[in-house]
Amino acid sequence: MANIGFIGLGQMGSPMAKNLIKKGHQVVVYDINKQAVNELTSVGAIAADSPAKAAKNNEFIITMLPNGKLVEQVIFAENGIKETISSNALLIDMSTIHPLESDSIRNRLAAINIEFMDVPVGRTSTNAIDGTLLILAGGSQSQIDRASEILLCMGSEIINTGGPGRGIRVKLINNFMSIALNALSAEAATLCDALELPFDVAMQVMSGTPASKGHFTTTWPNKVLKGDLTPAFMIDLAHKDLGIALDVANQLHVPLPMGAASREVYSQARAMGRGKQDWTAILEHCRFCSGLKK
Amino acid sequence: MANIGFIGLGQMGSPMAKNLIKKGHQVVVYDINKQAVNELTSVGAIAADSPAKAAKNNEFIITMLPNGKLVEQVIFAENGIKETISSNALLIDMSTIHPLESDSIRNRLAAINIEFMDVPVGRTSTNAIDGTLLILAGGSQSQIDRASEILLCMGSEIINTGGPGRGIRVKLINNFMSIALNALSAEAATLCDALELPFDVAMQVMSGTPASKGHFTTTWPNKVLKGDLTPAFMIDLAHKDLGIALDVANQLHVPLPMGAASREVYSQARAMGRGKQDWTAILEHCRFCSGLKK
Amino acid sequence: MANIGFIGLGQMGSPMAKNLIKKGHQVVVYDINKQAVNELTSVGAIAADSPAKAAKNNEFIITMLPNGKLVEQVIFAENGIKETISSNALLIDMSTIHPLESDSIRNRLAAINIEFMDVPVGRTSTNAIDGTLLILAGGSQSQIDRASEILLCMGSEIINTGGPGRGIRVKLINNFMSIALNALSAEAATLCDALELPFDVAMQVMSGTPASKGHFTTTWPNKVLKGDLTPAFMIDLAHKDLGIALDVANQLHVPLPMGAASREVYSQARAMGRGKQDWTAILEHCRFCSGLKK
Amino acid sequence: MANIGFIGLGQMGSPMAKNLIKKGHQVVVYDINKQAVNELTSVGAIAADSPAKAAKNNEFIITMLPNGKLVEQVIFAENGIKETISSNALLIDMSTIHPLESDSIRNRLAAINIEFMDVPVGRTSTNAIDGTLLILAGGSQSQIDRASEILLCMGSEIINTGGPGRGIRVKLINNFMSIALNALSAEAATLCDALELPFDVAMQVMSGTPASKGHFTTTWPNKVLKGDLTPAFMIDLAHKDLGIALDVANQLHVPLPMGAASREVYSQARAMGRGKQDWTAILEHCRFCSGLKK
Repeated sequence: MANIGFIGLGQMGSPMAKNLIKKGHQVVVYDINKQAVNELTSVGAIAADSPAKAAKNNEFIITMLPNGKLVEQVIFAENGIKETISSNALLIDMSTIHPLESDSIRNRLAAINIEFMDVPVGRTSTNAIDGTLLILAGGSQSQIDRASEILLCMGSEIINTGGPGRGIRVKLINNFMSIALNALSAEAATLCDALELPFDVAMQVMSGTPASKGHFTTTWPNKVLKGDLTPAFMIDLAHKDLGIALDVANQLHVPLPMGAASREVYSQARAMGRGKQDWTAILEHCRFCSGLKK
Repeated sequence: MANIGFIGLGQMGSPMAKNLIKKGHQVVVYDINKQAVNELTSVGAIAADSPAKAAKNNEFIITMLPNGKLVEQVIFAENGIKETISSNALLIDMSTIHPLESDSIRNRLAAINIEFMDVPVGRTSTNAIDGTLLILAGGSQSQIDRASEILLCMGSEIINTGGPGRGIRVKLINNFMSIALNALSAEAATLCDALELPFDVAMQVMSGTPASKGHFTTTWPNKVLKGDLTPAFMIDLAHKDLGIALDVANQLHVPLPMGAASREVYSQARAMGRGKQDWTAILEHCRFCSGLKK
Repeated sequence: MANIGFIGLGQMGSPMAKNLIKKGHQVVVYDINKQAVNELTSVGAIAADSPAKAAKNNEFIITMLPNGKLVEQVIFAENGIKETISSNALLIDMSTIHPLESDSIRNRLAAINIEFMDVPVGRTSTNAIDGTLLILAGGSQSQIDRASEILLCMGSEIINTGGPGRGIRVKLINNFMSIALNALSAEAATLCDALELPFDVAMQVMSGTPASKGHFTTTWPNKVLKGDLTPAFMIDLAHKDLGIALDVANQLHVPLPMGAASREVYSQARAMGRGKQDWTAILEHCRFCSGLKK
Repeated sequence: MANIGFIGLGQMGSPMAKNLIKKGHQVVVYDINKQAVNELTSVGAIAADSPAKAAKNNEFIITMLPNGKLVEQVIFAENGIKETISSNALLIDMSTIHPLESDSIRNRLAAINIEFMDVPVGRTSTNAIDGTLLILAGGSQSQIDRASEILLCMGSEIINTGGPGRGIRVKLINNFMSIALNALSAEAATLCDALELPFDVAMQVMSGTPASKGHFTTTWPNKVLKGDLTPAFMIDLAHKDLGIALDVANQLHVPLPMGAASREVYSQARAMGRGKQDWTAILEHCRFCSGLKK
């Protein structure tokens, strides 16, 4: 059994804290929302009236808050965690915040010898309730070893992301890709609808192509990720096909803001000499345009 | 053995015609590129010096051309297919062209009792060589039954798309989604790189989420496709997370044109009252903004 | 008095033809819309039942049609202008069409010794009625000299755009800029509204800055157009200010699709080394990304 | 002669402070950059070693800093302005910061009876040197009256923006519009270049149209701003013309990310029923999509 301070009892934090209690840990909770605190004390938590008090004498301090400014505040502001945290405690931020803010917090804490991990979670609030979250652990191997038992009370799977700051980074990439992809998928499905093509027919075809399987494990590994840009499908042709789709969509009154943006990316890649390269060379183009590769 | 006219001997058409010959069919070929024609006659094809001659006396006429204007031309212009095609022949356009142009060609041909199918192909030029293309058959059931044996000389799998015009439509949707997704994936991978996060760590996480698995078979079926918009993950939060990603990317000099476009889509969905709905409601939003749903 | 054939009696063409009649010219008209033809004959025009007949024996043939395909058709299809036009006639296309289509038409006509000018018009249908259109004359000096009297029946100002094909090009650039700017202005005005800032206050300030005066004659001439990229206002700062605007807009639920796209352009310019250059260097960046400048 | 504290001696702040000294005011300066401080003391300023000391006993305190976080810090952090500012002093923030941050600062100061104005400046660093900045005064009439003499040492023109918070708001709108317009102008000029159309010919035409004159004072006042949406130029036609421009640009390898975004805005406006309205109705469309108008 461990002594745990838990700060932030929102839609995710509340069920996560409950799961810690269910597994027999002693949990001291803090939130500005008194009702959320009462809900937790009714199932066995101890209430604290400040982050400092929630942190005091506990081995693990967990924060689950809406943004980095709040994380910074509950740690460093008056009556913050910093004032009472034990020298051998481990502070675990499970919030989804700005990675560079997370880095800055970790660095400020390192300067005063407080250990910090970035451990955001994947999946949904249903998984938070069931204790089946995906745990994205950022920290040293020894930190991860130490925290694993606690983390597995809240989630069913831990991914060791390979070092401090990487948990929050991988969360960011995953969310960016998932959320933007959702909007792009909606554009495709809407165009499908406007073409009076049943979505299940489109799905049947797409289920066997990168449209649905993605590129990371299909088109990229044997081409751009290996440095082979000889064309299986040329950027010039990809650009042409996007042009047809945009033409049709504009005739049918289907706005495709992401599709339109993507065509200009291919257009730029062509202008900068990649028209005859494989379409996966778009990755090289994006890296070049970010100053990451000459 | 069938008698086949084949027009368009490019990177795809040439190996497709060869595969028909290998399977024992008699193939009369036409292309403006004499070298491409010679290559085919050297393996047993008969050369024609016009589309009209390639079409004459053949049961199947296949076109595989770069755009709809050319397809229209080889059919309707002087010395075109129309002049000689037999009344019981089947004209199969395997090109990737504008669906509304394909519709118009089919309608013009129907008016003079010529049967037409839209049968574009999926996969790559390697599959064209191996005869393992994906065949997206648009046409009536009887047309598909009649053409199947021929089509399976060029591909390994036929998908009956459910009617005339649907082959070319499903090709369009699949290509739009695949090609735009490739550019979005490049944005995510570039941001990953700029964050100094190894791509395989990101991949490990994304392989279990919609970032890599897509939304069509994961988040959508139990929510928006069922009409349930209660939030598993709210549009407001998705919008917030995109904002963090764009902030980070702009700090790190990674342009995200598609990511930026997607944020404005979420912003618009929020402004129009969907902030507290599930993120899959973006589909409903896109349909509304296309005039497809009130 | 000149003999003129006029093809295309739409919202613009009809009043233009009327103005030619008013100034005493003899005008033979053609349109597929019989009512439009009748309206013209009632004010003195002669009806023709094909483009060929409208062209016959006339010194000037004017086309005013919705798109390039139609222009091509009335010239080259059966019963088209080409069949009857006199060897010394001048064919003037006043439609707004695709410049590369216009080039192609001019070249095909040149091959058979028919003179062609591209002379699209500016301003609105009200000006078409008043005879105060802006005439954008593309053609040789001698063609412009020859056509001027006729053109000035329809417009109040001729701009000699400097050569064949330039009339239609300048029209394209002007329309692109005007139409896109309209949407960008709407984004700014909507943000203004959401900030509860009276538009007239914003206007008062913007009337003295590039926001309203544009960049072509204010910030560009002494900087990028002269090759001076030392910063009066750095790209890094412009990027920062756009970021603030997007932050505010996203907080206030104002979608800024064009604003968002523009930030990624500045971001890319920074990534590619232009952060400390003057903001007008965005022009150089765009030219570089179009392959126009190394 | 007034006693003035001045905090922030960057590219803008330094010449502004010098101009106050030249006009005979006593100026106490603070900056973390010692060299910048020395430069000011060499022309007569008094150095302070904290914001608190710079504020002490002065009637006007001016801040000119890179972002809102810094403005907040020099006011509220330890050794900040708040600690020493006289009860009858006037704090004038001339920085360009986030308007909602500026509001928050003003409100926090109001709660402790400290007067605050938002007075950002327009024009460039050259104007800062010459004392010819444009002063965008946000505040009450009496504050503006009181500060005018001081402000006119740094600028040549004051615009009373009509109330607290409006200075910073109008700055935001102006900068958003100017900066985004710069990138849009670059797209148009690059397309011009790719079309081999001399820029001065394009300029000659655009100088008489909204392309260069903007829409605020040309097309909008008699149409959308009056509630008249009957078409002088229909959204359907504007959408068509943008489509031609994008076609041409994509053929010529000119990426138009903003142009492409704008076409999708027009497409959406059409889908939502505005195709036959005047193009200025795009403003109404944007307002609707921001939840500002039903």
